[in-house]
Parts: sequence; structure tokens; C-alpha cells
Amino acid sequence: MAKEITSRSEDYSQWYNDIVKKANLAQNSAVRGCMVIKPYGFSIWEKMQGQLDKMFKETGHVNAYFPLFIPKSFLSKEAEHVEGFAKECAVITHHRLMNNPDGPGVVVDPSAKLEEELVVRPTSETIIWNTYRDWINSYRDLPLLINQWANVVRWEMRTRLFLRTAEFLWQEGHTAHATKAEAVAETLQMQEVYARFAEDYMAVPVIKGVKSANERFAGAEDTYTIEALMQDGKALQAGTSHFLGQNFAKAFDVKFLDENQKSEHVWATSWGVSTRLMGALIMTHSDDDGLVVPPKLASTQVVIVPIPKPNDEIDAAVEKISAELKAKGITVKYDQDKKKRPGFKFAEYEMHGIPVRLGIGKRDLEKGQVEVARRDTKEKSSQPLEGIADYIEQLLEDIQNNLFQRALDFRKEHSTHVDTFDEFKEVLETKGGFIYAHWDGTTETEKKIKELTKATIRCIPNDSKDEDGICVLTGAPSKRRVIFAKAY
Amino acid sequence: MAKEITSRSEDYSQWYNDIVKKANLAQNSAVRGCMVIKPYGFSIWEKMQGQLDKMFKETGHVNAYFPLFIPKSFLSKEAEHVEGFAKECAVITHHRLMNNPDGPGVVVDPSAKLEEELVVRPTSETIIWNTYRDWINSYRDLPLLINQWANVVRWEMRTRLFLRTAEFLWQEGHTAHATKAEAVAETLQMQEVYARFAEDYMAVPVIKGVKSANERFAGAEDTYTIEALMQDGKALQAGTSHFLGQNFAKAFDVKFLDENQKSEHVWATSWGVSTRLMGALIMTHSDDDGLVVPPKLASTQVVIVPIPKPNDEIDAAVEKISAELKAKGITVKYDQDKKKRPGFKFAEYEMHGIPVRLGIGKRDLEKGQVEVARRDTKEKSSQPLEGIADYIEQLLEDIQNNLFQRALDFRKEHSTHVDTFDEFKEVLETKGGFIYAHWDGTTETEKKIKELTKATIRCIPNDSKDEDGICVLTGAPSKRRVIFAKAY
Repeated sequence: MAKEITSRSEDYSQWYNDIVKKANLAQNSAVRGCMVIKPYGFSIWEKMQGQLDKMFKETGHVNAYFPLFIPKSFLSKEAEHVEGFAKECAVITHHRLMNNPDGPGVVVDPSAKLEEELVVRPTSETIIWNTYRDWINSYRDLPLLINQWANVVRWEMRTRLFLRTAEFLWQEGHTAHATKAEAVAETLQMQEVYARFAEDYMAVPVIKGVKSANERFAGAEDTYTIEALMQDGKALQAGTSHFLGQNFAKAFDVKFLDENQKSEHVWATSWGVSTRLMGALIMTHSDDDGLVVPPKLASTQVVIVPIPKPNDEIDAAVEKISAELKAKGITVKYDQDKKKRPGFKFAEYEMHGIPVRLGIGKRDLEKGQVEVARRDTKEKSSQPLEGIADYIEQLLEDIQNNLFQRALDFRKEHSTHVDTFDEFKEVLETKGGFIYAHWDGTTETEKKIKELTKATIRCIPNDSKDEDGICVLTGAPSKRRVIFAKAY
Repeated sequence: MAKEITSRSEDYSQWYNDIVKKANLAQNSAVRGCMVIKPYGFSIWEKMQGQLDKMFKETGHVNAYFPLFIPKSFLSKEAEHVEGFAKECAVITHHRLMNNPDGPGVVVDPSAKLEEELVVRPTSETIIWNTYRDWINSYRDLPLLINQWANVVRWEMRTRLFLRTAEFLWQEGHTAHATKAEAVAETLQMQEVYARFAEDYMAVPVIKGVKSANERFAGAEDTYTIEALMQDGKALQAGTSHFLGQNFAKAFDVKFLDENQKSEHVWATSWGVSTRLMGALIMTHSDDDGLVVPPKLASTQVVIVPIPKPNDEIDAAVEKISAELKAKGITVKYDQDKKKRPGFKFAEYEMHGIPVRLGIGKRDLEKGQVEVARRDTKEKSSQPLEGIADYIEQLLEDIQNNLFQRALDFRKEHSTHVDTFDEFKEVLETKGGFIYAHWDGTTETEKKIKELTKATIRCIPNDSKDEDGICVLTGAPSKRRVIFAKAY
């Protein structure tokens, strides 16, 4: 075990902070709640972005860019939206600094006060729907399928790197449709895209479901979510897709003429994932030796370490292996640093979660083989140099699948059906995880359960079956189970 | 000529605005000075980003992300920097809104005043060098070669879409080096990368040079620039690369131990290009029929229009052509819209600057040919279907080269050596362009010339030859010519 990392069993929260720090993913900045995403952390985020962007485009979306600032009055136009977002935000009141007349430094110039304050976008529905009013006249202008990659700011009081920061990076899709059915279909399609991304690329199994009214996005009629389970038994909301009804179209007066020349309000969706996914990635796969990155998101998939140092013979063998790997589209790094010992390098690459490590020394070459270490299981084996690229290609696939399966097994072990509130509390406090329980459908009960246990309703699963039962708290009748958990 | 566009000769400025609007590139937003980049405009910016990012990575740079906000006090740490950037900026003073106690809407919560105001980054040297202090201890930590793609805000009074907006998108490279020589080499390397991008991808010829002291970036020891010439004879600064000396290292106390264990301040560079490049692209190539996009930056390179409508026979032929083009990596769109006439479509694609348009009708198919129209020269010809993909591949290359050559010829015609101030003024007022003139090297003279003529020194070209002469304004001795022009 790497000495620098606190073990998960000792202090899970400190373990997370240690990984983020020691694997060079991110750090706090001089600005409260705002993070610096370090180059290695950013390289993983870039891989995520690239894949998501591809999936958005494959489903017909295009990118655009809308202003960072939102006039204060816009936030008030949608009644629920303002309650959700206008409260903790960065408010711009002035547009100039001036030299301090009373000493060194600069001060706000009181003469440069804005007529109307601006807010740094916490989300962009308002500014975008104000723009869509210009873009939409007829059913021929619909659907509008637009995404934006952007930074947003929500003035969080308690922040944690990646999981909850004042500024974060995200994408927000904002689509406009002629019919309710089409907008609902879009909302579900994007939930599916997010689920596919989480499972196939991040190797993070997720449950697709819909939020209870109490957990909905402010201004949505329905919020669909993907929910993942972390190793400490807490849930993490990994992405949301909102059916917004006609709420924003009404607030910003966006109408279209349908095929019969009838004027109608437009139907809307919005959907987003953020740098929070980095937190989900870290907490799903990593271990007490450091980060574990699934091969499909690793900026370097294979690292080659010469034992004990590079020399002409090793260099030549590595050049051949590298060329074969690159020809298969596998990213590879050869660490020729002579100042660091192999053991030090091994620990470094384990810390950074590089999926596969090759060690090559004189004796290996004599035997025509190479030492292969996989990061997920830490198994090592000697493999023949002949055909090594094929072997590694398959190994990367195996690692990707193993990470997913491991996380899925964990989730299965930590998913429990309970029928009484005592059971509910006991499971929550002992093994945690997803608790499938009956609930009477009221916000009052939901809030009461949260107050008593800190658990919230993560979602009503899309595939939940009809099942008569009684609410664990009130005993009132219930038609299906919902998922409760403590959550990030 | 497209009726909707004002001709360049009639009103160049209105022509530019018309193109930006009618080609769906961008529009003003509800927030003063902030633009909305529309999907089509953004698709071109994405192509630029993709290529630039590739070139940065090929030269050893990695991406990272730093906070949007900068504490007010940071701006004051570098004496010149604060003069340049602390003045017109977005100032955040509060972190909460609350329901208006006296009526509808929300107001700033006076109890949520920040202890220290934050400024939305106008550029990130200060926050980045404050972070680099943690990252740099020894010469082993150097060089740091980091880039960031980000939005920045400068509170401009007079804004124009892409050319000068309060918020704009850009990349900013920030590198740290152990020696002055290495930092200077990096500065020049990035100027070269920018020049290569402008010429080889944007097809915009540029002059590489260094700025006069008066035009330097606030906090730089030298600012290198690439300067392009627009069709109205005005210059446009298309990218800058700054040698920052040890100014920011001193301001933020960033030192390293060299190989001899001696503590030294770190040497710095920064360099950036922005969405302003979109303005340069538009104004270099476009004409009175609309936008012209160089093939290498076109999101759609070839559009195919069925004459007069799609039918099975045409569809089959188009499928074959499309497959051949895609196999060559050429992006192609088949416009099957039955509601629009071919003439309408032609005008639309001309407006959007699609490099090549194919028209296919019954008679073409009978003759085994297709009509090919190129956007740059508007020449049309019939070409055999046999081998059409090879023909188009070559044509795209020809268009790319022709656009560059045409712009280069224009620049040559609009570059003038003058030796007297009368000549200077006459050339400036009649043909405009780059004026090569002797200057006595003083900021005083530079400012006086600007006051009298509105022309500024664009740069002292990297390749300028030693030549004895006398300053056009003062008659004082000069060792080389510099380039003057009116500029955007």
C-alpha cells in the first residue's frame, strides 16, 4: 500500500482527498470553492468530453455558446426556477475598479454600478430561452437540438473537489420541440445516452429512474436521473435529464405556428453532466494504492518501464512494442527517466491508475518475454513478446469489463429490499447502499425520512415493477418500491 | 448578389454585420456586449479549436483549468498588469440574491457581501502564477507547458460581434521556464504555431513581428504578434505571444532551485488567440454573396443538391458519391429537402460559404456527369462522375490554396513603403493597408502619429532588414522600417 494514502477503511473521506491530491487530479484554489483542475485530471475530463460530444452529435445535437451572465430579472421569470437558483450565486454589481484613493491597490469604482445586476450562470435555461424566442417561429424551426460546454457557478457553502464546487465545468443540452411526446422522448433518450456513457466508458453501473417531485430540477415537470453507488455505500447522482414542459416557453413567451397555423408554446428539455463525473469515477474504482482509470478513459493506457534502466537493447524492444500498440490505437508511454528507480515508477503509475504496466529487463529479453501488470487486480504475469500487442488489446478490454463487473457486483451486494422502518434504518447504518422500500408518494413523508435518517429518494427506477405494499414510515398504501440512499 | 447583404463597397461595416447575421454565425444577446455564438458559427470555431489544440499538444503542451474568478488583490500584484486589466472588468461583490421585500422579483442580499471582491478573469496570469508557486520547487519541475481553453471578460464600451466583445472564448497558454533563453524560444515557437495555423488552415497570410513598447501586453517584456490585413485595408491582430520575463514570478514569489541549488525566479510566457479569429476569417475571404470558409475549417466541405428534387435515381448516385468522398475524409451533406427550390438552396449554401456545391439532375446522370460549383471563384463546370472524388479532393486543395494566394496578393497590393508624412497620410486615406515607414523609436512619436492619423504601429516585423532612414514624423534617425496601419 502506498504510504501517502489514507486507507478507505480508516477514513473514506480522507482517502478520496488523498487520491485527488496524490494522483494530481485537482486542488483548491485561492478563490473559495473554486478548483484548479490539474493537467492529469484534465486529461481524463477531456477523454470524457470527447466521447460525450461524439454521442451528442450522433444523436443529432450541435454545439453553440451562450453568455456567461444572466440579467437578474431573467431568473425571476420562472417561479420555481428562481427559488432553486437565484439564491446562492455570484452577483456582478459593478464594471470597473479604480486606484484606491486612500492607499495602495484597487477598489470598486462606485460610479461604475450596473443598472441591473448580472448573475454568473448557475444554469442557462433563462438566457437560452430568451434567445430561442428569436429563433423559433414555425414548426419548421423545430426541433432545436443544442448543447453547450461551459463553466457554471453555484455559491456552495461546503465544497469538495469535483463533487461540489462553486465553479464547475459541464455541458448543458437545451432542446425545443413541437410536441410534448417528442420532448419526453428526447429527455429519455439523453438519460439513455448518459447511462450508456457511464456504463460503457466510465465502467460505472447506474440505475435509470425518475426523481420524486421534491428532488426535481427547479422548473422541471420531470427530472430523469442516473444514480451510481460509491464504495462507501453512498449514492451519487451522475447525470440528469429534465422534461421542462412549456414552463420556460411560457416564461419567455416562445411560441411557434404549427402546421395548421395555430400558435402554441414550445416544449423543452435540458440535460447535463459535469466534472462531478470525475468524483464518481474516482470513488467507484480506485483503491488504497491510488486511482484506477478504466482503459477507455485513460489518457495513457500502457506504460513501459525499463528494468532497471533504459539501454539500447531494451529501447529497441520497446520501440517495436510501442509501434505495434500504437497501430492498434493504444496510447503508450515509455518512461526513460534514469533518475528514478523502477519501484518508485511502479508506485507512481499505480497512483495515477494507468491500466497496464510493462516491465522489461535483460532477463525478460533473453527469455523473449515481458512482465505485464494490470492495475485493476494488481496481477502480474510474464507474457511472450511475440503477439504482445494482441494480448494487451484483449487485456485492456478485460480490465474495462472487470471494472464494470466489480462495481456491478458491489452494487448488487449493496442493494436491499426492506419492508419496515427499523430494517430501513438498520441497513442504512450498517451496510448502506441502495434501499428499495415502499413509500406513500408524499413529499411530507420523504422529508420526514430524510430528517430521521439523512437518506433521500434517489429515484423511482424506470424499470420498477408494480407491487402492492405499505410505506415504511407511514404504513399508507404504495404501488411500487423506490430507491433510498444517503447521497453525495 | 444576395439581396440581403449590403455590398462591401457600399458599407463595409454593415457588410460584416450582415454576413455574421445572415450566415448564422453569431448575434448579440440580452447582456450588453456578450454574444451568442450560433451553431453554425460554433461549428467553425470548433474546427479551429480542434486544430489548434492538436498543434499545442504536438509542441508538448497539456491542458488544465483554472478558476473563473480572480481576487481583486491579485490584480494589483504586478504593477503594469493592474493598469492594463483592472479597470474595465466584471466585479462580483455579493454571493446571494433574496426575494424583494418591497415587491416582485429578487434583489441583492446586502448581508451576502464578499469580504474581498472578485473579478471575472480578463486573463489568467495572476491566478495561474499564484498556483504555479505550489507546483514549482526545483528545475526538475520545469518547464511547465500548460494551456487552458476558457471564457474571459473585458468590459468593452464599444463591441462588435467576434471582433470585440465583453465575453469571448479563447485559449491562453502559460508556461514556466528555468532560463530566459528557453522562455524566449517558447514565445517565438508559439508565434510560429499561430502563424502556421493562420496561413495553413485559415488561409490568412500574417506578418510576424514584435510590438512596440506602447502596444505591449500589460506585464510583458516583449509581445510578439501575428498581423493580418482585412479587405478594407485595416489590420487585425490575430494572435499574440508574450515573453513575461520574471515579472509574474516576482509578483507571486515563484522561485526554483537550479542544478546548483541556487534559488532563482522562474521565467514566463503567455500566449493566446480568441474567437476574434472568426472575425479575421470572415473579413479576409468573404464576398458580397456571403461567407467564404476555407475547406480545412469548413464543417461541411461539400453539399449535394438534387435538381430539381431527390428521386431514387439521384439518391443512388449521391449515395455512391458520398461514400467515395467520406472514404477520403471529406465531409458531405445531401440536401433532400423537397420544400425548397434548388435556386434557394444555392443561395443559402453560398451565404454559408460551403466550399463546393454539386448539382445533380436527370440530364447530368444521363451524361454521366455532375455540376460542380466552387464557392471561392463561383466557377461552375460539368465533371464526369467517374473519378469525381479525386477531382473534388484536388479541388478542395485548390480552393484552400487560392484563398490564401488571393489574400496574399491583396496584402502585397496594399503594402506600401513611404518616406514622408504626407505620403504616409495619403496612402492611409486612399488605399490603406500596411504602411512600411521609418520611426524614431519613441512612444511619444508613436502616440502623436496615432493622434494625427489613427494609425498605430502594428509591429516591427521579425524579418525587417536594417536600413538607415529618418522618422516620417520627426526626421530623427531610424534603423529600420516598422509597419503602421489603422486596425481593428
